[in-house]
Amino acid sequence: MISSLVLPVVEPLDQTLRSTLQHLIDTKTKPPGSLGRLETLARQMGLIQRTTHPTVQRPAMIVFAGDHGIAQEGVSPYPQAVTAQMVANFLAGGAAINALSRVADITLEVVNAGIATPLPGTEGLVDIPIAAGTRNFAHEPAMTRDQALAAMRAGAERVRHHAALGTNVIGFGEMGIANTSAAACLMSRLCGVPIDECVGRGTGLDNAGLAKKRNVLASALARHPQGAEARGAIVSSATALDVLATFGGFEIAMMAGAYLAAAEARMTILVDGFIATSALLVADAFAPSVREYCVFAHASNEAGHRRMLDHFGGIPLLALDMRLGEGTGAALAVPLLRAAVAFLNEMASFESAGVADRDA
Amino acid sequence: MISSLVLPVVEPLDQTLRSTLQHLIDTKTKPPGSLGRLETLARQMGLIQRTTHPTVQRPAMIVFAGDHGIAQEGVSPYPQAVTAQMVANFLAGGAAINALSRVADITLEVVNAGIATPLPGTEGLVDIPIAAGTRNFAHEPAMTRDQALAAMRAGAERVRHHAALGTNVIGFGEMGIANTSAAACLMSRLCGVPIDECVGRGTGLDNAGLAKKRNVLASALARHPQGAEARGAIVSSATALDVLATFGGFEIAMMAGAYLAAAEARMTILVDGFIATSALLVADAFAPSVREYCVFAHASNEAGHRRMLDHFGGIPLLALDMRLGEGTGAALAVPLLRAAVAFLNEMASFESAGVADRDA
Repeated sequence: MISSLVLPVVEPLDQTLRSTLQHLIDTKTKPPGSLGRLETLARQMGLIQRTTHPTVQRPAMIVFAGDHGIAQEGVSPYPQAVTAQMVANFLAGGAAINALSRVADITLEVVNAGIATPLPGTEGLVDIPIAAGTRNFAHEPAMTRDQALAAMRAGAERVRHHAALGTNVIGFGEMGIANTSAAACLMSRLCGVPIDECVGRGTGLDNAGLAKKRNVLASALARHPQGAEARGAIVSSATALDVLATFGGFEIAMMAGAYLAAAEARMTILVDGFIATSALLVADAFAPSVREYCVFAHASNEAGHRRMLDHFGGIPLLALDMRLGEGTGAALAVPLLRAAVAFLNEMASFESAGVADRDA
Repeated sequence: MISSLVLPVVEPLDQTLRSTLQHLIDTKTKPPGSLGRLETLARQMGLIQRTTHPTVQRPAMIVFAGDHGIAQEGVSPYPQAVTAQMVANFLAGGAAINALSRVADITLEVVNAGIATPLPGTEGLVDIPIAAGTRNFAHEPAMTRDQALAAMRAGAERVRHHAALGTNVIGFGEMGIANTSAAACLMSRLCGVPIDECVGRGTGLDNAGLAKKRNVLASALARHPQGAEARGAIVSSATALDVLATFGGFEIAMMAGAYLAAAEARMTILVDGFIATSALLVADAFAPSVREYCVFAHASNEAGHRRMLDHFGGIPLLALDMRLGEGTGAALAVPLLRAAVAFLNEMASFESAGVADRDA
């Protein structure tokens, strides 16, 4: 049992305002239920913020970057140096998440969680690496439990920074060559799903590359028994930490801690794609209530993501055939949250607008 | 054959820039194709605007409101007076489309296309009714062909007004008690689909109400042969005009003309839900190229909408269980268009960012 004192404490979602919020939603000038998912979003945000007038304030996106020793096994078509190069691209404003954050007025932060290649510059970077990349879990655990916990705490600290600045909606993205391999192993162990169903093409493996990735990961899972006994049952935080340390990445561990801190701070959390959702599996083992603060922003095209969403009973807001990571799916959902609070806060009721209700 | 001189002329989408746009998209710092639908949106908008730097300028939403004689048959749970009451609500800023337009920075215009009930006020309204509601198509054609054409021209004029002000993205919404009945008959005749598969619960009919609506519409279709010979084949503009005049509404006819003018002005057109898509069926019969300018914004929960989308080969951007109309689904898609042009205009290329491409 891991002491939860060192990590954020997540309270179950307070349901006090549920019927009040539902009544407000149902008396707006529209047929009941006709705004669909916007209605459930508005209610969830009201519950999270404990108000009938929820808001989207200073939405933030934290992109955690880290490298993975498993990249040495050739599980990605891109060289490991791309992680650092893409971080430089983030800092220069040229990546997809930069464009999507700017256009949606989202504050973007980039964190070096543990990149292997020296960075050309660190201006604008939150430079808090745990180590210069993880070890190769084909041979040994990716990190120690202490490193995993340190990363979780560091991720939580970044969220607290944004909470202090007023952020009440947050998303987490990631960059790390080979991190779909880490995420697939987390998924296999924490959801109890055979590895072949968790492995996808990542950034674009061909059939031969996909077969190789499956073999590498199957061997790695066979080598490491950590968490193998769980297989679909409820996973303890101790087991989740073991699995995280064995197969995870520093960026994934920071995301796991960040989820917990975001729920503790009663933020609405936008869950991005495959890797971001794998980090939520870890956070969920520490505090299952975390999922009540989550909005599953999109369904990634990476194989396995839909099944992970099913694990959470999460229905994605968007399904745009995307598979980029970086938090791009989460960023696209921010305008939908703004729309949800806008209808709740600004629409007239049948009574106030003098509109006849149905069957009148 | 209807003279097309009186209506907008729609050119097929110019494909000149297709390969240039695709190359730009493919060399952005991301795995090829990984931005999914955003990539196809960016390419479509570039083709429509004939530029490698498409924009979203002064996005506009026109909500056309009109009443339907068929409402006398009890096909809606809401009284006809609600059309006028909701228009007053639009003008006061209290409806869903007001909130969603404001939050997405969309210019909203409300048009009286032919409301039956006197309006309490018309400040801010574009007050150009064809008549005080259509006739009851259970007994007689809803309007004359001249009225239908006049409405189409009036809708086109509203779009030209916005084109002159710089709008290059537009959506059309509607309000009209009983207009799902009109739309279902248009769909049945213009797509050749049995009426029962076109009829849904609208604003919320119960099972008895749904059965009654089906009976009323089946009888009406049996009474009027207009367009019955088309049944799934390509529909001529003359037939479409007949079907529109027989079953349509003034707001639907104005939308049909508006689609044509928007395509003529090379705007990106956001297609809303069931009724808005039924109007596109009419426009499509006049100029099939109109669909090349269309983005199918969302899949409505109104029964039949998915099948209408299939008719166009349209894959909806959003599926949020909505069924409100007013243009609300189209409004929610505007931020996705902004995201699409943002990535195309602002992302670095692998070369410019110094990021190694795959298999490097």
